[in-house]
Amino acid sequence: MKKVNKKGKKLKTSSIWGGRFNKPNSDIMIDINSSIDIDKILFKQDIFGSSAHAMMLFEKNILTKKELNSILNGLKKIEYEIDKDKFKFSKNLEDIHMNIEHRLTELIGEPAKKLHTGRSRNDQVATDIRLWIRDSIENLDHLLMKLQKVLIDKSEKNIETIMPGFTHLQTAQPITFGFHLMSYVFMIGRDRSRLKDCSNRLNESPLGAGALSGTSFPIDRNMTSKLLGFKKPLNNAMDAVSSRDFAVEFLSSLCICSIHLSRLAEEIILWSSQQFNFIKLSDEMTTGSSMMPQKRNPDAAELIRAKVGTISGNLLSLITILKGLPLAYSKDMQEDKLPIFSSYETLILSINSMHEMLRGIKVNKENMRKAAELGHSIATDLADTIVKELGISFREAHGIVGEIVLYADKKKIPISALSINELKNIDTRLTKLQSDFSILHSIKSKISYGSTSVFEVKKQIKSARKMYLSRK
Amino acid sequence: MKKVNKKGKKLKTSSIWGGRFNKPNSDIMIDINSSIDIDKILFKQDIFGSSAHAMMLFEKNILTKKELNSILNGLKKIEYEIDKDKFKFSKNLEDIHMNIEHRLTELIGEPAKKLHTGRSRNDQVATDIRLWIRDSIENLDHLLMKLQKVLIDKSEKNIETIMPGFTHLQTAQPITFGFHLMSYVFMIGRDRSRLKDCSNRLNESPLGAGALSGTSFPIDRNMTSKLLGFKKPLNNAMDAVSSRDFAVEFLSSLCICSIHLSRLAEEIILWSSQQFNFIKLSDEMTTGSSMMPQKRNPDAAELIRAKVGTISGNLLSLITILKGLPLAYSKDMQEDKLPIFSSYETLILSINSMHEMLRGIKVNKENMRKAAELGHSIATDLADTIVKELGISFREAHGIVGEIVLYADKKKIPISALSINELKNIDTRLTKLQSDFSILHSIKSKISYGSTSVFEVKKQIKSARKMYLSRK
Amino acid sequence: MKKVNKKGKKLKTSSIWGGRFNKPNSDIMIDINSSIDIDKILFKQDIFGSSAHAMMLFEKNILTKKELNSILNGLKKIEYEIDKDKFKFSKNLEDIHMNIEHRLTELIGEPAKKLHTGRSRNDQVATDIRLWIRDSIENLDHLLMKLQKVLIDKSEKNIETIMPGFTHLQTAQPITFGFHLMSYVFMIGRDRSRLKDCSNRLNESPLGAGALSGTSFPIDRNMTSKLLGFKKPLNNAMDAVSSRDFAVEFLSSLCICSIHLSRLAEEIILWSSQQFNFIKLSDEMTTGSSMMPQKRNPDAAELIRAKVGTISGNLLSLITILKGLPLAYSKDMQEDKLPIFSSYETLILSINSMHEMLRGIKVNKENMRKAAELGHSIATDLADTIVKELGISFREAHGIVGEIVLYADKKKIPISALSINELKNIDTRLTKLQSDFSILHSIKSKISYGSTSVFEVKKQIKSARKMYLSRK
Amino acid sequence: MKKVNKKGKKLKTSSIWGGRFNKPNSDIMIDINSSIDIDKILFKQDIFGSSAHAMMLFEKNILTKKELNSILNGLKKIEYEIDKDKFKFSKNLEDIHMNIEHRLTELIGEPAKKLHTGRSRNDQVATDIRLWIRDSIENLDHLLMKLQKVLIDKSEKNIETIMPGFTHLQTAQPITFGFHLMSYVFMIGRDRSRLKDCSNRLNESPLGAGALSGTSFPIDRNMTSKLLGFKKPLNNAMDAVSSRDFAVEFLSSLCICSIHLSRLAEEIILWSSQQFNFIKLSDEMTTGSSMMPQKRNPDAAELIRAKVGTISGNLLSLITILKGLPLAYSKDMQEDKLPIFSSYETLILSINSMHEMLRGIKVNKENMRKAAELGHSIATDLADTIVKELGISFREAHGIVGEIVLYADKKKIPISALSINELKNIDTRLTKLQSDFSILHSIKSKISYGSTSVFEVKKQIKSARKMYLSRK
Repeated sequence: MKKVNKKGKKLKTSSIWGGRFNKPNSDIMIDINSSIDIDKILFKQDIFGSSAHAMMLFEKNILTKKELNSILNGLKKIEYEIDKDKFKFSKNLEDIHMNIEHRLTELIGEPAKKLHTGRSRNDQVATDIRLWIRDSIENLDHLLMKLQKVLIDKSEKNIETIMPGFTHLQTAQPITFGFHLMSYVFMIGRDRSRLKDCSNRLNESPLGAGALSGTSFPIDRNMTSKLLGFKKPLNNAMDAVSSRDFAVEFLSSLCICSIHLSRLAEEIILWSSQQFNFIKLSDEMTTGSSMMPQKRNPDAAELIRAKVGTISGNLLSLITILKGLPLAYSKDMQEDKLPIFSSYETLILSINSMHEMLRGIKVNKENMRKAAELGHSIATDLADTIVKELGISFREAHGIVGEIVLYADKKKIPISALSINELKNIDTRLTKLQSDFSILHSIKSKISYGSTSVFEVKKQIKSARKMYLSRK
Repeated sequence: MKKVNKKGKKLKTSSIWGGRFNKPNSDIMIDINSSIDIDKILFKQDIFGSSAHAMMLFEKNILTKKELNSILNGLKKIEYEIDKDKFKFSKNLEDIHMNIEHRLTELIGEPAKKLHTGRSRNDQVATDIRLWIRDSIENLDHLLMKLQKVLIDKSEKNIETIMPGFTHLQTAQPITFGFHLMSYVFMIGRDRSRLKDCSNRLNESPLGAGALSGTSFPIDRNMTSKLLGFKKPLNNAMDAVSSRDFAVEFLSSLCICSIHLSRLAEEIILWSSQQFNFIKLSDEMTTGSSMMPQKRNPDAAELIRAKVGTISGNLLSLITILKGLPLAYSKDMQEDKLPIFSSYETLILSINSMHEMLRGIKVNKENMRKAAELGHSIATDLADTIVKELGISFREAHGIVGEIVLYADKKKIPISALSINELKNIDTRLTKLQSDFSILHSIKSKISYGSTSVFEVKKQIKSARKMYLSRK
Repeated sequence: MKKVNKKGKKLKTSSIWGGRFNKPNSDIMIDINSSIDIDKILFKQDIFGSSAHAMMLFEKNILTKKELNSILNGLKKIEYEIDKDKFKFSKNLEDIHMNIEHRLTELIGEPAKKLHTGRSRNDQVATDIRLWIRDSIENLDHLLMKLQKVLIDKSEKNIETIMPGFTHLQTAQPITFGFHLMSYVFMIGRDRSRLKDCSNRLNESPLGAGALSGTSFPIDRNMTSKLLGFKKPLNNAMDAVSSRDFAVEFLSSLCICSIHLSRLAEEIILWSSQQFNFIKLSDEMTTGSSMMPQKRNPDAAELIRAKVGTISGNLLSLITILKGLPLAYSKDMQEDKLPIFSSYETLILSINSMHEMLRGIKVNKENMRKAAELGHSIATDLADTIVKELGISFREAHGIVGEIVLYADKKKIPISALSINELKNIDTRLTKLQSDFSILHSIKSKISYGSTSVFEVKKQIKSARKMYLSRK
Repeated sequence: MKKVNKKGKKLKTSSIWGGRFNKPNSDIMIDINSSIDIDKILFKQDIFGSSAHAMMLFEKNILTKKELNSILNGLKKIEYEIDKDKFKFSKNLEDIHMNIEHRLTELIGEPAKKLHTGRSRNDQVATDIRLWIRDSIENLDHLLMKLQKVLIDKSEKNIETIMPGFTHLQTAQPITFGFHLMSYVFMIGRDRSRLKDCSNRLNESPLGAGALSGTSFPIDRNMTSKLLGFKKPLNNAMDAVSSRDFAVEFLSSLCICSIHLSRLAEEIILWSSQQFNFIKLSDEMTTGSSMMPQKRNPDAAELIRAKVGTISGNLLSLITILKGLPLAYSKDMQEDKLPIFSSYETLILSINSMHEMLRGIKVNKENMRKAAELGHSIATDLADTIVKELGISFREAHGIVGEIVLYADKKKIPISALSINELKNIDTRLTKLQSDFSILHSIKSKISYGSTSVFEVKKQIKSARKMYLSRK
């Protein structure tokens, strides 16, 4: 076997698979093939998985106690080296798995060469990436909870802050700022629930599936599954190494969450414009212009809005990559990692930025209230009152109020400023109306479950606290 | 109010919101704005929702018993008309909601005008689309179960059919066709589970959220929620009308399922090529060429493969549409429907075609087995045996077998045909090997959980039957 | 051959390729395989191509004069039938090519069977789709020119209408509405140029490439190329039937144009909000609400904004479909048509709606001007003047004006209202400033090429008229 | 101004726009806002643009000769520092523009502060990115030409190498390998032409557009445009800073090219499988398996195939980002850079890898030829001959050959092995056929322009050499 070793040394690529090759890989091959720059982020998961595999090999008498200890200590040392930035990653060793295995061999010699017994890189990488996503979801869940908390707190403080509610960006009905913000709490609640489902579904162990067909070594997949915190081993070895549906589901869940953030970001941009002037961002979260000295730009909000592009692009990348791939493992699947890691980091940045922005916003309550008076925002209330007080059907009442609005617009006054005589001219029955048509009354009157009234928003806050924040 | 009515008649667009307008919509506006060609598919859900709303309005004394009966009968008649293709849809009435309301008014007069009390099209359409997706998921679940059944049956029949397993489309290890097909059963199992989670998460009622802020009518959202089979009303009215995360999740789940089908489709295309010749498709699922008389083209498989493009395009459409939309409802959201409906229909077509194709394939067992002999498919078994019988580490054994392969390739024979002398020349220790290196032995030896051996695949089939097919 | 004919009659699918099949296609196969519902839109191009092919076959003595006339008259009749909606399309005949060929055989008998000599559906469909896109681009070019015209006319009328220019949606500098609209004229100019390049590049003839390898019939591809208005025949038959790059380029060009329209649509939505109130849309292009009687919603603008989603989704679909397809023709390519046709129709609708909206907008010049005063829009002018009149570097001037703005904000007044004393407190040199700081002056002062001053915008209008409108 | 300077020092963010801010940016703001890690790649373009701007400011008497020289020398020094990796980039200075300007101020003091006169970062970054894409296209054009060259050379060597041509991955007709490869030469030719059009269209200068409205300094945009090699200044300042259509067009062109490469990659994967065994990749471009010692995986081809996902994801990112952005500059547009840079680098890697793979492939001519005999590949030739020799229409001949194929399949022999008697049983007229039905004859007989015959492929090669390789 010396021949192999000698040749191995000359090979540019890893000797791990070099036995049947006469020539080393060309530089361009190493460039396109190597993934270590990207997948080194998996080092903790890879070491966790290898440790579990080693413990199982010992249990099944494939490793001796001494070999096991040697491997576990070696892996611990490697983890320390990478943590402390003392590990030398090599492109020639392709990926994180080979980099670690190679270093382990340097550190402990022979036992390292037994570690790969009964597994392949195919099940190894599937294990690592599942563990990584599981950890990432846990982290995201925590940050999203913090974001919900700041939203709920802001809502509570603004439970009586009146603002215009919009549809089609046209003034629709008066609402409160607290009510508005609470809607995002529930969206994010679903984002968390979606991620949790994803985590549960992917939490099965591919380890021990081998290259695609299982192995003839008497390994115990249940044991490694338990050690790694998986629910159970995946039922079919081919499925275990071929499938990346969990990664698409993860990216899709991140994308949906980023859409929610982008909608709030868009509103922050609108609200902090000179035209709306509903809120003011803190200096800490605002930037200026190199040319225009007066500018206060909501850059963070704009970037959060744009990040949907980044994440949805990544999602589509992965879908396109997986489309029509024959089983089992194909190298195309190596390209799953950048979309996954980049989307996660992008979303973390967006959540943290949104959190920080929301913490610092100043609410211009006066401006919001004034804006709520615009655009005949109480027109629906008027129609509803006509139904209730005059016994007219809603559709007819809707038509009458339409007429009133048309008349008021011509006179350039709000409908609340019309005289009884003017109303009478439109429909004589209107003289009998008795209600108050202030925007405050409008909000108070919304008695239906989930509505904008203070009473209902308080219920929403209480319910959200219980559902989303109570775990600690 | 006669004035309004008169004007209403002149208006090209619906008089439902025409009160405050002087001029009718232009033709191009009607063209771009109308969605009736697409959303009429929602008619059953719309009628279901309206019926529940009416029953609740009666319970809350907003409708009389007589009015309620009149409405329910009218709606039933409309459902019948649409079912029987006797309903005249009008583009001027924009969408399914207005078409039905308008027809109801024709049929029953005044009571119809009260039906819209305490609701808006915003909560109405959100209700309809949630109901529609819920129904669609139920249907998909049933069809996917049928597809699993045909896969499991084919697996069982081919539990001993040996074929080459591939990675990178290179012969990797011998597997069985039954084992291979079973991997798809588990993929589809996750597709079903994903759709179920989606259905559960969206199964909350938006009805009664109004345009965005709730309503001053004393409606009972819990009652309509129960009547419509929802788990509970959505907590926040703004969220109820603004959110379409459930639709993105639905499309994403469809897309993942279509990826799984595309991978099987790709394999069917490969397997039925002259080069592989592993299977033959039935005449019923094969097409010919207008120019080349001998052709038997696997068109259905190619189309299933392509459909990932259609569905992922739809998914991206919806994401792009929702990105950065301010709350609450914006008209952009009307464009959610075509992607949803088209993706569902596309996937149904793909599932049904795949089902039919699988039912009719003929397996060329002889060709599969011969192919399994190619490409030194038992090289891993040889390495494993070297580890077990000679006590050499896996990494070293891997290197030795690499050398053997290189030598055999030069001689253009399979490694199993090498003589003891030849092996000795590579490594003297090899003379001690005792095992059988047939592909049959290879498959038998795979004893790990989830592997390709007959015993393990039987367990997989039993487990899959229990998990996926036992509900009825 | 009777046997074949008899069998042919029993076959559900077209007898055109049925010779080697024992059984007809199943219903689900016909469903997934048939494209006639979608590709019948190609009928004129298909007939045009067939006519040219027939004339060439005659020229090469493959058809007699009589046969040629019979074919040409038959095709004319079919075109008439389809135009008049009298043609019976059949799903069993798969696509437009077979539907027409089948009908031609019904009409003229034997000569019809000779028409397919030396061609295949592969080159036939490639020819049709290239012709269709070429025609579509011509139509788009005309509509985009009309849109440019309305933009230029509106610009000219608003060459002195002052409004705030925004960056980051924050007031940046005063501009004119005419200047702002002109930017879209140049964007659309590039859209037209892009489409023209696309048209030129795809204008090569695939006809006569056969299934993939050419033909042994002595056809004249140059002749058909000329007859159909192509620049030349494609050089390589395999490329001719396999490539759809032109379709991706077409969709990408449509998508870019739709992005431009979406940006203008977004601005129209903002401008017609109560908060901006810069413009008012016409009743003809505005819709109302089923619940809120006062609403005037810019639905068309919202839909134009959303259509980017539709078109980009289609673009992605096609890319995903084509990725990794082996040559030559694969059935996946049939799925190119819906994305192409749907994107074209979507964009046509968007252009026409935008055209109509722009024609009808009313500009609230007074509101625009007032808004231009907000947000210290002349701060850059102040900095520039400090540079020019006081000889201070721009970076330092920028800092000074930043200080001034901070001070003015604290006092809640515009910077133009600060007294000399106040300025002196910030920097003593400021007392020497002499210029006028009105927004009118700001605009006048912009003397650089392409700027917002009346003089420069006039040049832009003149140049745009010449570049874009002068062809007819 | 001391106050500003003092404050400036305390600010974490650049003092370039800090005048009006009381507090420095928070860490998370700096994280999300900074783009220096990505846009530093633009340093050469930024320095090129700044040099041209400075020369123009001197020409217009805004800078003195001394100041100009000082600036030019400073910029040269900075370029050297970055080239030599001695430049210290700072996240706090946001982007490449501010990093360079800040360093310039350190190096030369006051004159540096005048450099930004009459420009903004908005026109500056638009200039940089246009220059960068222009340079990149030039580089791509060169590499694609090299790829065409290796394809043409391989084609020439294999002009007589017979292989099966496929449609639907079913054997269709015999072709030559040279003919097949030539199709990619023409695809890549269009890719180059597309990129050239893109380069021409974007080659207009935004410099001097200022933030959005031009400037009051008497700058000369024509002069900077000329100095930078642009065709002319962009006509409208707002358009100049707002538009990124050229970037979408660039990404789309890259994506189309990557689709072409992916199709060739797919074929390489198929051809090097054990089942096809048409080619063998070199050791230099092949990898092994960590578990299976015999494997030779075409990883580079798989990665090239996957890269369509990366690039199309980037394309979609940018489209999603730009959708509905109001004019002029929004921070969202900063996110255009990663998609642009990453797509370019990805494609470069793909082209180079494809080039290297093609250079090293070994063609198994014998296997290719054998495969060409399969699947009744000469069936079309038989039908054509029946037309020519027996005067039967093509459709009828197609049917007869279908019958023959069905009969031969039942006997499991190729159609060429059928006896005259057998043919007679199918159709008596067949006895009169005289032609040779070898695959060699089939290829020779393809006389149409662009076909697979040696004569025609020679013409294609000659024409391709002239069109694509003759420029140098």
